[in-house]
Amino acid sequence: MPEAPRGIAIVGQSGGPTAVINESLVGVALETRKYPQIEGCWGARHGVKGIFGEDFADLHAETRSNLLSVAKAPSAALGSARHKPSPDDCKAIFEVFKKRNVRYFFYIGGNDSAETAHIISEVAREQRYDLRVTHVPKTIDNDLVGHDHCPGYGSAARFVAKAMLGDDLDNASLPGVKINVLMGRNAGFLTAASALARQRPGDGPHLIYLPERGFSLAKFAADVKAVYDRLGRCMVAVSEGVHDEDGVLFAEKLIQGDVDSHGNKQLSGTGALGDHLVGEVKKAFGNPKLRARADTYGYLQRSYMGARSLVDAAEARWVGEQAVAQAVLGGENGSMAIVRRPGPAYEVDLKLVPLESVAQKTRRMPDEWINEAGNDVTQGFLDYLLPLVGEGMVAQVGRLNFIPVKS
Amino acid sequence: MPEAPRGIAIVGQSGGPTAVINESLVGVALETRKYPQIEGCWGARHGVKGIFGEDFADLHAETRSNLLSVAKAPSAALGSARHKPSPDDCKAIFEVFKKRNVRYFFYIGGNDSAETAHIISEVAREQRYDLRVTHVPKTIDNDLVGHDHCPGYGSAARFVAKAMLGDDLDNASLPGVKINVLMGRNAGFLTAASALARQRPGDGPHLIYLPERGFSLAKFAADVKAVYDRLGRCMVAVSEGVHDEDGVLFAEKLIQGDVDSHGNKQLSGTGALGDHLVGEVKKAFGNPKLRARADTYGYLQRSYMGARSLVDAAEARWVGEQAVAQAVLGGENGSMAIVRRPGPAYEVDLKLVPLESVAQKTRRMPDEWINEAGNDVTQGFLDYLLPLVGEGMVAQVGRLNFIPVKS
Repeated sequence: MPEAPRGIAIVGQSGGPTAVINESLVGVALETRKYPQIEGCWGARHGVKGIFGEDFADLHAETRSNLLSVAKAPSAALGSARHKPSPDDCKAIFEVFKKRNVRYFFYIGGNDSAETAHIISEVAREQRYDLRVTHVPKTIDNDLVGHDHCPGYGSAARFVAKAMLGDDLDNASLPGVKINVLMGRNAGFLTAASALARQRPGDGPHLIYLPERGFSLAKFAADVKAVYDRLGRCMVAVSEGVHDEDGVLFAEKLIQGDVDSHGNKQLSGTGALGDHLVGEVKKAFGNPKLRARADTYGYLQRSYMGARSLVDAAEARWVGEQAVAQAVLGGENGSMAIVRRPGPAYEVDLKLVPLESVAQKTRRMPDEWINEAGNDVTQGFLDYLLPLVGEGMVAQVGRLNFIPVKS
Repeated sequence: MPEAPRGIAIVGQSGGPTAVINESLVGVALETRKYPQIEGCWGARHGVKGIFGEDFADLHAETRSNLLSVAKAPSAALGSARHKPSPDDCKAIFEVFKKRNVRYFFYIGGNDSAETAHIISEVAREQRYDLRVTHVPKTIDNDLVGHDHCPGYGSAARFVAKAMLGDDLDNASLPGVKINVLMGRNAGFLTAASALARQRPGDGPHLIYLPERGFSLAKFAADVKAVYDRLGRCMVAVSEGVHDEDGVLFAEKLIQGDVDSHGNKQLSGTGALGDHLVGEVKKAFGNPKLRARADTYGYLQRSYMGARSLVDAAEARWVGEQAVAQAVLGGENGSMAIVRRPGPAYEVDLKLVPLESVAQKTRRMPDEWINEAGNDVTQGFLDYLLPLVGEGMVAQVGRLNFIPVKS
């Protein structure tokens, strides 16, 4: 094992923020203080932009108590970015690293960020510069290959489940068709988490549509009609990333949106998909007066103040700390994955997986977690999910027993 | 004071649910147990529909512990309705009241429900039938005339403020224009509550548009541009009820929606207004690639599990209890209003106000709570609001100090 180089550690945050991404940031900032080899921990503002712009915050100059407070705040405290570094950017980043004697780079983000980390790691290797690059996972989409689950997902799932639970009670009291559009471009994990809102027979969501399955308008409308005929109402959870059998994104046909520099189409921040589906339901019911509504839960899924899963928060801190310990004491580059220990109890370990195995790849919901009709999840998925969303989610909501009056 | 009649009490819930409407229901159900004159407390399912359909739940047969659990659940436990009783409906309701010896009627709802309560109260008076009718206020819109504030508002305001706070941090980390459409058809109280998200200079929302002022697209776009040029980003809170100088609802031009039996246009459950405003901003900036997004907070504002204001919950319970006590011991019909006691500390009393003074009227934001430019609220409003949203809202979110590195 090569000796750990002496130098600066840089940490950055990238991609869509989460409720616990700052836990990982603070994990890195505090852990780097332990090792004499690490001569400073600098936070790059707005991801790699902050590196080639040399816009750094001195994280060792922050007080421990302020960092512990920052850890609890949702959203990326350093600022985030969706900028994909070009080869020129990478060269510029590299010049900065060499000039500043940066030897440790911790990049907190999803699969796009893993790609960026991988590119920078490769440039360093080619230049025979001892740079220790660790990708610190975060994504509400939960779509990183080789990771059992990702920090950020549990809290977003908790928000979705709590939101859906209240929304379903609302729909039960004023019945109709309610369509909720949830985040998840390519993977349905977050949309699937809405199933946790069910506590009793008849509770919604009654239908769940994920990007892992082809989405047919005709099938959708028939499904909604069948539920409505049975229950007098229907709650639907649908992923923003649903697409037709040919893989064409449904939302893409509707939205005049943006494309980021990773080539990702903007799906969030618009209500077009939900509104369109409401129109389709009214048409299929042959009833323009049907009470049908859509909400797009939008950015609240990742940013809402007060739906943190404590399990998720603790794990997010842990991956940040372990990324630093591994970089100094182990020395390999990679992505710090949470993996589950076999057995009935929820126990996890951390494991470094290769950057290239995570970069730009998408882990999707396994087949066995989606029902045959492609409009619901299975108990296996719920068993997987429950430990991640934190305490109190299974507390039963109070309901009247509706005892008839004696006449 | 006439002696209290012996008979049945009926309670119903109407209009859009809130996070604490069941507190009032449970307040009525428990308080009615105290008085020997009240021989039973029946919950009408889905508002007045449950009365003329004789669909009742025996609330005295429910255990106290289950009722206390129901009180904590958002949304209307009895089921709600937006049905406006016709003269024929009122006649049918009346036959049921007489047949069943109903002597107390508690109707939990907003100004539409106060109208219904008023109509039924008038029918009883014409027929010289001793029926004690009390309107128990609930509305997230906070728009009842003669009420300082309404149960349901504080919790919805808390949700909005917490949501906006996280959303603003999100926007600060990935800068752009973010437009959040909030509930409030005719009154801006709920949209205005977003101002509570501001903790430091530069925090959003930077612009707040309320239905109390005419909304001009040109002025809006210029406002957004000015903020964006100054801060590099802009957070907007806009009420779903904004309208042009001639009073024409902005959303009405965009939405092919429903109209309920009170003549209210459907504004919620669609993302059309936000999406339209995003388009206008991009046009005004001359930049179709501008990062501009819209979220419509939608039904979560009234139904989210876990944003209850404890102050709001306690007051909702209290108005339910006091409605019963007043009906038995006082005997006048009316709407049970929360009024504020003068003085620096937050102290409230309950006061019965006439049903006709509340029915179908809308209280709007007073002029002095809106800034001159019509795009923000004043400190006076924030002073009014703060005690209503419950504890912990002023806790500062942790932020980095961004101490520059020594070069």
